[in-house]
Amino acid sequence: MRSEWFELVATDPATKARAGLLRTEHGVVETPVFMPVATQGAIKAFDHRIAGELSYRLLLANTYHLYLRPGTDVLRRAGGLHRFMRWDGALLTDSGGFQVYSLGSLRRVRDDGVEFRSHVDGSRHLFTPESVIAHQRAIGADIVMAFDECIGYPATYQEATAAMQRSIRWERRCLESHREQEFPYGYRQQLFGIIQGSIYLDLRQRCIEELCALPFDGYAIGGLAVGEPVAVMYDVVDHSTDLLPADTARYLMGVGTPQNILRAIELGVDMFDCVMPTRNARNGTLFTTRGRINIRNQRFKFSDEPLDPAWEELGVEPFSLGYVRHLFVSGEILGLTIATMQNLAFYRWLVRTAREKILTGSFRQWAQCFLEQFYPETTLEGERST
Amino acid sequence: MRSEWFELVATDPATKARAGLLRTEHGVVETPVFMPVATQGAIKAFDHRIAGELSYRLLLANTYHLYLRPGTDVLRRAGGLHRFMRWDGALLTDSGGFQVYSLGSLRRVRDDGVEFRSHVDGSRHLFTPESVIAHQRAIGADIVMAFDECIGYPATYQEATAAMQRSIRWERRCLESHREQEFPYGYRQQLFGIIQGSIYLDLRQRCIEELCALPFDGYAIGGLAVGEPVAVMYDVVDHSTDLLPADTARYLMGVGTPQNILRAIELGVDMFDCVMPTRNARNGTLFTTRGRINIRNQRFKFSDEPLDPAWEELGVEPFSLGYVRHLFVSGEILGLTIATMQNLAFYRWLVRTAREKILTGSFRQWAQCFLEQFYPETTLEGERST
Repeated sequence: MRSEWFELVATDPATKARAGLLRTEHGVVETPVFMPVATQGAIKAFDHRIAGELSYRLLLANTYHLYLRPGTDVLRRAGGLHRFMRWDGALLTDSGGFQVYSLGSLRRVRDDGVEFRSHVDGSRHLFTPESVIAHQRAIGADIVMAFDECIGYPATYQEATAAMQRSIRWERRCLESHREQEFPYGYRQQLFGIIQGSIYLDLRQRCIEELCALPFDGYAIGGLAVGEPVAVMYDVVDHSTDLLPADTARYLMGVGTPQNILRAIELGVDMFDCVMPTRNARNGTLFTTRGRINIRNQRFKFSDEPLDPAWEELGVEPFSLGYVRHLFVSGEILGLTIATMQNLAFYRWLVRTAREKILTGSFRQWAQCFLEQFYPETTLEGERST
Repeated sequence: MRSEWFELVATDPATKARAGLLRTEHGVVETPVFMPVATQGAIKAFDHRIAGELSYRLLLANTYHLYLRPGTDVLRRAGGLHRFMRWDGALLTDSGGFQVYSLGSLRRVRDDGVEFRSHVDGSRHLFTPESVIAHQRAIGADIVMAFDECIGYPATYQEATAAMQRSIRWERRCLESHREQEFPYGYRQQLFGIIQGSIYLDLRQRCIEELCALPFDGYAIGGLAVGEPVAVMYDVVDHSTDLLPADTARYLMGVGTPQNILRAIELGVDMFDCVMPTRNARNGTLFTTRGRINIRNQRFKFSDEPLDPAWEELGVEPFSLGYVRHLFVSGEILGLTIATMQNLAFYRWLVRTAREKILTGSFRQWAQCFLEQFYPETTLEGERST
């Protein structure tokens, strides 16, 4: 077996969908898996102990944010982010490549790394492959991501080539640094490589060939969900999973809608993260097994029905549509918390059910039925990537 | 026994402190009791199911706010506030007297009630004793408060007399209305009278004599903690508890600090409510068994110690000072939630411990030791009412 961490349990007979087990030093995670985003070491408006009760075992945090606040000195003194958050499940940290890309004019890419200004106080900083590995050592995530150069959409072939080549050089240095630096908290951390190449299939292929020759513990497909048409995203994913090794985990970064996730699962992706369930919750958009709703809608004013008819299966309290609408209309923070609970419970249910259907060989049919019901009026053309 | 709802269990030998049981149709509540404030049917930044886990059995909500949002029509359709909130403990609703007083220029007191403009949309409304009882029927609280006229501090003797007499007339009408109107949800509701009279002891005495001749289920001391010196507040409370019947519950409205509460318990008060633990939590002021702290303080940056060394006794998760500081500094809502949990756990611990000490006859000594430790530099003169 190529990766000691990932075990492929089953492959759907009709699609490329996979069920697997992702081992970490903080527990085993069933895949497909969705990772709630806890950027600064907290899920927004939500107590992560409840995420644990919803059977989440793996959260995502961001190196860029944690490096700035509370600072890696604080995390080192606390014994790592798990202890700091009082979270006994597993953690994955993004390397900061996407965050510094998002800073726009506040960052300057050099050959040795990225110079950027903090969005908090404007102070100057430099991320290099080596420093990013060191920061992720201090954070202590179970899975750390290599430092890459993420570019936007559209990008010319030339820009995409340069960024891909730089990413490969940086990721190589990450791997070396990862081998040299000790694990500070007595447990091992995994290092995932990130595939770049924008929408150019030949660049993606070259990047995969180069990075898969190196002993990364898993692979992420990066640089997608940055504005490209969703059909293009699926195309890149489909092409990539054909080339990625079967016996390591595959992570599609920053994706996405329920539809995006089911389609990417169908194409052989194992891992996902997205701010969508938590951010949309705070805007009053709820994901339910009956579809998306805006909880502020007047039509819920008198409704005594639970947010989701499948609340028992989702493992949530059956707060009523009318009550949660009232909380939103009245500006109560509890509304944000309950909405976040609903959306995270829904996402957890979605990937858990997908896994069950893969194991019983009925994934494609179930996904199709589910999506028709969830998005009654949507066509592929109308689909958005996030 | 005068009240079928309240049972006096023990009186402290050295003070007027009492331990009792307050029965409601949604469970028995041990007194002294502190009621968390859930103004709009939600504790701010907090899931009331956690309040239940902290052994809270009685929450306070506000008729004024619930009447405006979600509206009593919604609550009637939902089967009352308990069902609307999914709260199986007991509820008490303030009548709106204090809220309309707080509206200042937006309200006009007439002999038959109070005209006011909504703080939400400026619309005009009228509260009368009868309508307030009807609204509280729709809300369905276990304990409903009579409609009174609350006045500020300072008030002339003449103003205080007029407001007290009007309060008595209104409360009489509340009682009649309470007798006539059916209980809509199959359980009985209690009606508490509210003593007014500002800081004038003879007015307080007249008000008590008049209202205690009427069959209210309990009595509140209102019109305090509105700006008067704290020594004056204690004086009014002391005088009032001497006159109030021993066999009904006594509720000091809107109070207060830990010190206020322990002193008022010493003077024979059974029930309290205050926004202090929840509001201060959101400002970063934490109440702990070691004293008050501002969690944003730089000195906590590296601290791995739990918010409260007595976290186990308080029944809370030992989140560290450093972590919660990070959440506040980084603007994470979870910080507000954890701070609220700490403060409510502390207030619950405070009154629960007071009760234990009353039962073992050691209340005065314990309260004195605790306050010296909690407020190392405070004198009575320096004490504030809220």
